[in-house]
Amino acid sequence: MEKREAMDQSLELVKRSTLALVGSNGDGGYPNVKTMIKADHEGLKRIWFSTNTSSRRIGQFRRDPKACVYFLDDEAWKGLMLLGEMEIQTDGESRRRLWHPGDERYYPLGVDDPDYSVLRFTARRGNYYHSLANADFDVE
Amino acid sequence: MEKREAMDQSLELVKRSTLALVGSNGDGGYPNVKTMIKADHEGLKRIWFSTNTSSRRIGQFRRDPKACVYFLDDEAWKGLMLLGEMEIQTDGESRRRLWHPGDERYYPLGVDDPDYSVLRFTARRGNYYHSLANADFDVE
Repeated sequence: MEKREAMDQSLELVKRSTLALVGSNGDGGYPNVKTMIKADHEGLKRIWFSTNTSSRRIGQFRRDPKACVYFLDDEAWKGLMLLGEMEIQTDGESRRRLWHPGDERYYPLGVDDPDYSVLRFTARRGNYYHSLANADFDVE
Repeated sequence: MEKREAMDQSLELVKRSTLALVGSNGDGGYPNVKTMIKADHEGLKRIWFSTNTSSRRIGQFRRDPKACVYFLDDEAWKGLMLLGEMEIQTDGESRRRLWHPGDERYYPLGVDDPDYSVLRFTARRGNYYHSLANADFDVE
């Protein structure tokens, strides 16, 4: 598979995905995986998430920002693995970026609720597969 | 959520899952995630997979057997993360265990094809979630 085609198909997959599987470095040297809602994205380079400040993943990314964000279309046997860094964004602009009316259900204090955390993943490289074909590429 | 209930629901989820997301420790300290077909399981304790000997994951598990096996029901918002060790099984019994008629499509030399590798994951502990409830448990 050509890199260009892999990147085009990757972007298609990210656009139509509502969920991502997020890999982190957990306790005791074990990789961890968790489903998270893709809140926003900028091409393949940045993927945004939000979660509870108190969640296990926030502690893990504070200790080690290395992360994997994986998108999957299991019916078509397509998948994209992005590798990069996950950063916790504390600025007001990032917090407002992902906030939707009604999110007070989860965060009663609103966009400044200290339990509301915004995560921004920055991809360095990717691997896309479709059936038995796959390609590695850098994400610029 | 009670541990007993979490383990019962976990086993249900494993039984009806055909795929798992497998986390490994990849190059440069990055967690990696890959979709794999669940070939067999023994309760929650052991999950079996097969793959190409030449695949990237085999090299990763040779270097570091620490693994995560994640099962997902995204419609019901349920998920199970198992943490443990992934071992490459080279004995004939393990190889025959997962072999199905027709697998010669992928491994032309049959069950002894050197590119056919069998992986056995042994779980140490788990975390099951359903909606906002979740529970940790040890896998005995």
